[in-house]
Amino acid sequence: MRDFLPADKARRERVLAVIRERYRAHGFDEIETPVMEDYDRLHAGIGGDNEKLAFNVLKRGLDAEAIAAAADQPSRLSDLGLRYDLTVPLARFYATNRAQLPSVFRSIQMAPVWRAERPQKGRYRQFVQCDIDIIGDATGRAEAELIVATLDAVDALGLEGATVRINDRRALDWMLGHFGFAEDERPGVLITIDKLDKIGVDGVIGELRDRGATAPAVEAFAAFLRRPQTLELRAFGEGAIRKALPDGAPDEVVADLVALGDAVGRARGIPEPYFTLPIVFDPFLVRGMGYYSGTIFELAHPSVDYSLGGGGRYDGMIGRFLGQDVPAVGFSIGFERIVELLESEDDAAATAVVLVHDRDVPVAELAALKAALVADGSRVRLELRTKNLKALLERAAADGYTSFATVAAGQSAESLDLKPLS
Amino acid sequence: MRDFLPADKARRERVLAVIRERYRAHGFDEIETPVMEDYDRLHAGIGGDNEKLAFNVLKRGLDAEAIAAAADQPSRLSDLGLRYDLTVPLARFYATNRAQLPSVFRSIQMAPVWRAERPQKGRYRQFVQCDIDIIGDATGRAEAELIVATLDAVDALGLEGATVRINDRRALDWMLGHFGFAEDERPGVLITIDKLDKIGVDGVIGELRDRGATAPAVEAFAAFLRRPQTLELRAFGEGAIRKALPDGAPDEVVADLVALGDAVGRARGIPEPYFTLPIVFDPFLVRGMGYYSGTIFELAHPSVDYSLGGGGRYDGMIGRFLGQDVPAVGFSIGFERIVELLESEDDAAATAVVLVHDRDVPVAELAALKAALVADGSRVRLELRTKNLKALLERAAADGYTSFATVAAGQSAESLDLKPLS
Repeated sequence: MRDFLPADKARRERVLAVIRERYRAHGFDEIETPVMEDYDRLHAGIGGDNEKLAFNVLKRGLDAEAIAAAADQPSRLSDLGLRYDLTVPLARFYATNRAQLPSVFRSIQMAPVWRAERPQKGRYRQFVQCDIDIIGDATGRAEAELIVATLDAVDALGLEGATVRINDRRALDWMLGHFGFAEDERPGVLITIDKLDKIGVDGVIGELRDRGATAPAVEAFAAFLRRPQTLELRAFGEGAIRKALPDGAPDEVVADLVALGDAVGRARGIPEPYFTLPIVFDPFLVRGMGYYSGTIFELAHPSVDYSLGGGGRYDGMIGRFLGQDVPAVGFSIGFERIVELLESEDDAAATAVVLVHDRDVPVAELAALKAALVADGSRVRLELRTKNLKALLERAAADGYTSFATVAAGQSAESLDLKPLS
Repeated sequence: MRDFLPADKARRERVLAVIRERYRAHGFDEIETPVMEDYDRLHAGIGGDNEKLAFNVLKRGLDAEAIAAAADQPSRLSDLGLRYDLTVPLARFYATNRAQLPSVFRSIQMAPVWRAERPQKGRYRQFVQCDIDIIGDATGRAEAELIVATLDAVDALGLEGATVRINDRRALDWMLGHFGFAEDERPGVLITIDKLDKIGVDGVIGELRDRGATAPAVEAFAAFLRRPQTLELRAFGEGAIRKALPDGAPDEVVADLVALGDAVGRARGIPEPYFTLPIVFDPFLVRGMGYYSGTIFELAHPSVDYSLGGGGRYDGMIGRFLGQDVPAVGFSIGFERIVELLESEDDAAATAVVLVHDRDVPVAELAALKAALVADGSRVRLELRTKNLKALLERAAADGYTSFATVAAGQSAESLDLKPLS
């Protein structure tokens, strides 16, 4: 867990403000849920591996007897926990507040989550997630809105050139069946395929063999992976999608992917045929969570070799809280990674003035001078003059101040001699 | 703990943005600390009664033996807790990061805190606090900056006419000594005086007698409280302050209060003599926390009879973390109360358009129309036409949308017929 000093905090708030503004323009509405949810809800099997990483909150009013009785069952010590993602709280929020929400609800959530990760570079125990979700729309309109809004937000942050890798769990499932993997081994096979980027084709095939997956299926899949024909990454359309899949892919899934590409292309004003779409079909994209039911996607940027976000359709999940199926699809931006990518920019706001004063200038005079400059639209910092004026001014410049004036007793606002800080 | 629906969340974010902007103009810098702090730090006796209300986080990896061993000492089940205020975390932050901060550090913190309050109207278990603090300045400049910045922020929120009630713990202590209360009974006497607003003069005197406070002191204090001479609330200056205190009040404390009034008057452009200062001297203002060492203040507004914030000087506290005394003074705005006072305003942003479409309009056409309007600066929501179009449009108007158009297949952005939503 980290402290954020002023420069970092200002950058984080600027990034959040840009994302919030763009998502709102695309018709999404921000909500907020409490950081704590019921223990049972957080441990209902939806959160996958994250459930094990939850911080659980000690039940209040436990007496010695209750504690002793919980020795064999530590979960009895806790009735609340800190959320480890924003998806479980969203499902609970929707179930609680559905009557007050539009029939298609487009939510923004930008808020911290907590996971008891082992400390390592780039992993934090408290970090901000930044999710948009559309609940109540089973059509590809929802995917199109999410992807277009996300690309717009990323553009607005100055990260132009991002792309979205897309796949569909239905295509994956069909493909595994096509090669002959049995239904009960497919979840394990997907876990291995998910490592393709990291361990390569030979690694995946080796691991599938080690797993004891159906041997002819592994060999058929290996032959397919080793085709000389590589995916034309910048092409998108029915031809490209069919070429990237084994023959006979289901028409409906292909048509949905084609329609999604068409929608993103039209929204971004890209001329047909689409050779420069910011989306890419990747038939081997898996995404870890078990709840995905259809489209899945990941955000990539040429400047980094890791994902900057991802999401997908999870039509079955909200029903687990609501007792009634509601379609849902979400896209989560990797806020922490994006903040680290963005260079620290100077605050483009008004002039920022340091007033360097001696100890003998009365408080009332300083207060009046400061108020006059603030009223003029400046950001103002008072500084008592120190022996090393140069160091003081350098520090202020590093903090984003743009000019300074020295103040003597009796000085008026008009007589201040503002000099630039460089 | 509450869910915030879109309209509430938008209002909260607008209020935070206004406060942040004003505080930044006054030279304060926002920081952020993790929501969890070490258990021992949260329970070091600084947090007063709030320590008992802390949510403690269950230690990870406890086995049956460790749990059984903790039966007599539940604190051994926890090594972290959720913060119950922003002052303890600020002191810890300053001790950790001092080398990277300016010698006078002006912080903004706007963040949630948690207290296991019994559920009651207006009390929440998760609520936002909004604090500014100045660390490293022992002079009245700091108090003046805090009060002027707070009044400016409250004005900017549209709550003009706020006042700050001011006292000084040194004046209180001198006054209690003057009447003959022994040093060791003064903390208890202060707890009773703190109730003056609620239980009145007779209630206070009765409670002091019940407490068994030094009898002659209680009677001398009673006579003083019952003087016919009431505090001239709108006057502020040496005469008014001395008149409100018993004869012989210490010159230094009076001079500091006078200087503070002068500074606020000058900063707010109020002509002397100060009969309309937004600050009021209240010799019976106490403030609950034990750590206050000098000036204390409370924010009031004519529209409500409860405080909208408060703060004071706490010069001894940071030393407890740092092992070296550092002067500090803070002012906390009651964010939740202020948000409830402010009426819901419409978002003054650009036009917001609802595109009502039939099921047969291709996703790509909708995506292109939406993108065109977003690029023009509108906020855009897609809505599938329902039988009850009127209800759909009323809902959108309630959500802040300002116009709508119906979309047919093949329609171009130019041919959209935007009509106002009323």
